[in-house]
Amino acid sequence: MNFGSIFLSEALGTGVLALLGVGVVANVLLAKTKGFDGGWLLINFGWGLGVFGGVYVAYKTGGHLNPAVTIGILSSGADEYAPGIGVTVGNTIAYLLGQVLGAFLGAIVAYLAYKKHFDAEEDAGKKLGVFATGPEIRSYAWNFVTEVIATFILVLVIIGIGETPTGLGPLAAALLVVGIGASLGGPTGYAINPARDLGPRLAHAVLPVHRKAKDTNASGRKNNDWAYAWVPVLGPLVGGALAGVVSTLAF
Amino acid sequence: MNFGSIFLSEALGTGVLALLGVGVVANVLLAKTKGFDGGWLLINFGWGLGVFGGVYVAYKTGGHLNPAVTIGILSSGADEYAPGIGVTVGNTIAYLLGQVLGAFLGAIVAYLAYKKHFDAEEDAGKKLGVFATGPEIRSYAWNFVTEVIATFILVLVIIGIGETPTGLGPLAAALLVVGIGASLGGPTGYAINPARDLGPRLAHAVLPVHRKAKDTNASGRKNNDWAYAWVPVLGPLVGGALAGVVSTLAF
Amino acid sequence: MNFGSIFLSEALGTGVLALLGVGVVANVLLAKTKGFDGGWLLINFGWGLGVFGGVYVAYKTGGHLNPAVTIGILSSGADEYAPGIGVTVGNTIAYLLGQVLGAFLGAIVAYLAYKKHFDAEEDAGKKLGVFATGPEIRSYAWNFVTEVIATFILVLVIIGIGETPTGLGPLAAALLVVGIGASLGGPTGYAINPARDLGPRLAHAVLPVHRKAKDTNASGRKNNDWAYAWVPVLGPLVGGALAGVVSTLAF
Amino acid sequence: MNFGSIFLSEALGTGVLALLGVGVVANVLLAKTKGFDGGWLLINFGWGLGVFGGVYVAYKTGGHLNPAVTIGILSSGADEYAPGIGVTVGNTIAYLLGQVLGAFLGAIVAYLAYKKHFDAEEDAGKKLGVFATGPEIRSYAWNFVTEVIATFILVLVIIGIGETPTGLGPLAAALLVVGIGASLGGPTGYAINPARDLGPRLAHAVLPVHRKAKDTNASGRKNNDWAYAWVPVLGPLVGGALAGVVSTLAF
Repeated sequence: MNFGSIFLSEALGTGVLALLGVGVVANVLLAKTKGFDGGWLLINFGWGLGVFGGVYVAYKTGGHLNPAVTIGILSSGADEYAPGIGVTVGNTIAYLLGQVLGAFLGAIVAYLAYKKHFDAEEDAGKKLGVFATGPEIRSYAWNFVTEVIATFILVLVIIGIGETPTGLGPLAAALLVVGIGASLGGPTGYAINPARDLGPRLAHAVLPVHRKAKDTNASGRKNNDWAYAWVPVLGPLVGGALAGVVSTLAF
Repeated sequence: MNFGSIFLSEALGTGVLALLGVGVVANVLLAKTKGFDGGWLLINFGWGLGVFGGVYVAYKTGGHLNPAVTIGILSSGADEYAPGIGVTVGNTIAYLLGQVLGAFLGAIVAYLAYKKHFDAEEDAGKKLGVFATGPEIRSYAWNFVTEVIATFILVLVIIGIGETPTGLGPLAAALLVVGIGASLGGPTGYAINPARDLGPRLAHAVLPVHRKAKDTNASGRKNNDWAYAWVPVLGPLVGGALAGVVSTLAF
Repeated sequence: MNFGSIFLSEALGTGVLALLGVGVVANVLLAKTKGFDGGWLLINFGWGLGVFGGVYVAYKTGGHLNPAVTIGILSSGADEYAPGIGVTVGNTIAYLLGQVLGAFLGAIVAYLAYKKHFDAEEDAGKKLGVFATGPEIRSYAWNFVTEVIATFILVLVIIGIGETPTGLGPLAAALLVVGIGASLGGPTGYAINPARDLGPRLAHAVLPVHRKAKDTNASGRKNNDWAYAWVPVLGPLVGGALAGVVSTLAF
Repeated sequence: MNFGSIFLSEALGTGVLALLGVGVVANVLLAKTKGFDGGWLLINFGWGLGVFGGVYVAYKTGGHLNPAVTIGILSSGADEYAPGIGVTVGNTIAYLLGQVLGAFLGAIVAYLAYKKHFDAEEDAGKKLGVFATGPEIRSYAWNFVTEVIATFILVLVIIGIGETPTGLGPLAAALLVVGIGASLGGPTGYAINPARDLGPRLAHAVLPVHRKAKDTNASGRKNNDWAYAWVPVLGPLVGGALAGVVSTLAF
């Protein structure tokens, strides 16, 4: 499989993931939606089933949809990213670029789906929160720790799933994301995926979101909150890489 | 498989879908039910598991249950709608007619199951809302966009599921509908299926629903809200057709 | 398989079903539980996963757990209730007796698990509601209609599942019960199973439930509400038998 | 498989279980989390999917993750704990030690993930409740009965799952734990696993949890509530052992 096909497959899959993931947060947070205030489990199912749909669409590349997964497989010393796709520098770049671009585009489509609700929403902090994760208690060090732990579990179990014969396919990864969100999403909103956070944050930066925060807003987050943006990128990459190494010892 | 068998299979399956789907909205919206105010995730599971049951019942025709799926497969250039059922004009009509009639009848049965609760409910807008979708913020253009996007994802992933070997069967489509509802149902209530909306809306028009809206009601929706009815028909058809075309490029 | 083995298998499976089903209602309704007021979806999952556990335990008899299923298979003209178990008068009786006795015993065990919460609960109507179903709007005719419809769908889809190759096993029936509860449980609390209602109602009658209703209680239900008891027995039997007949035409 | 490998596999799997399980309770109970007050079903899914992840990680040892499961298999007279792992004294000890140590370590990692929220929480009883189970109505005898019943069902159905061919793999055990939590978790918070309770309780005892209860706290629980600690250890062991014996009669 060539660079372009890998790139396209992962972009499409991660696009579906980001569209459904950003969508469910919009549904729960923004004014006048049918799912307004629908609860944390609703958000967990939205993201988990976003993975579900995305993996089906990117099945030819194994449906990584997440740089932390790609890096985790790399660090595990595997030969292939998916059947027929070797672990090479070029392929790694195709995966990562496709994921970030896909998440960026998926977030834009989610914005279009909820356009009138973005317009109707007064709170700029909520609008940013639809796109990008943010901590409930800001502490870069501890927020980083949380993202490392949650992503470590995600990638470790995904590698474990690959070693086990089950008929669940994409459902296993989907349920895992529901579970990690339920259990470890409390402090930071579980990015556990650099593309999932960076892509939509970029989308928020370039989109004409109505009344975007100019100053620090009610949630204490300014503009695109770039100050925090490194946490949901670096934390998941470290957690994923660690999981790859540990998997070689454990499995 | 002949015209009548296709028609019957899709009518029965879509009937189960509409019965369970209309039923869950009745349970959450109408007065004095056990599921009153049960939340958006409950509604998502009701519709998703309606698909689950309907696909089993219509397994011989592949369980489309949705004109957007039929049109999507058509536009993807496939040879068959299901094993042994060719893509022909006659078969297409059998699918579409069966789906709309099934949804119409399923909604009538749901009405019978909730008869006393329709009688007890004062708000005519809620009663219409049990049958047909309606937007939270009325904007025909943007509501149309939302329905196109949500149905595009539905049909694209369904075609993707068909290309992937998993043991999930009807569960995959069911969970996909749960996820799309959770994520993209916020603005319009996710018709994502022309039959799902048109059939029950016709049922609402002909049924002796107690205190049906004569004038514009509290929710700003009049009678059967025919002014909006084209959105959940045309939007899903366009989204499904687009998905069929894109699937030929992507998969 | 002989009479006693069938009886035991169905009693054990239906016992698990009733224990988990009665248990979840106790958890949501009774005072001072951890799941108090946990919502309708929680109840749906409790009953659905009760079916899940019960079918595994009664796998040798096909896990009917429900006279409406047994009668539905009978009326469909099938040769066997499960692999190696013929449709005979004796076997039918073994199924039905096992189911009612199992549900009776399962409800007693659920009472023991929640003993201190039954003692702490003041409302006698809630205590009856833990064991037996009751309508939100009392109308024997319409309540009967609701039970017929919901059980018809249950048994029709279960027969459909049997005709379809999937790897879901007991999960399919479990999810179906979640869905029917979500969608059609609103008016009567979805008995959809004569044993599920009759067995626990008998348990309520004989158990020393603290402050059992002597007179008509707050919910308008007196003692064991025997006046209503025929609805959740006859409705499901009629619905199941109809589904068996329709399945021979439809599949 | 040698002692060390069994120990490691079960420790890692039970660590994932305890991390996700303790995590979801932290998310629902502690101050300022995104899942605060998220409801009982959210907690059930967190624990159930913790089992899901843990079983994948410990697939080489059959993913017991629970002394009650190990003892149940022992008492059922089986020859093997998992393919290639005989039922011997040494292996039994490897399972049990791995499980308790894994749960201890998993709880510590969960503490790190929620560090700032433990600091921000004022109620010491809630903090203990994140780690260890406690009854809503304290009655050692009846709490014991509840744990025996719930664990009996867990282990009986797990043994039943082992006898049935399904493609669900770890999902079956996961859903069973969701269901038992929904249905039988109301009185005691369903330890149903001695390691799940003892390991995290030890973690609570040694960790520098901010404002740990010195005196009896608002929830009436003092320090680590060692007075109750025997219930969630002995109850599950008795329930599991009983299930093993009954399974030989029933299956």
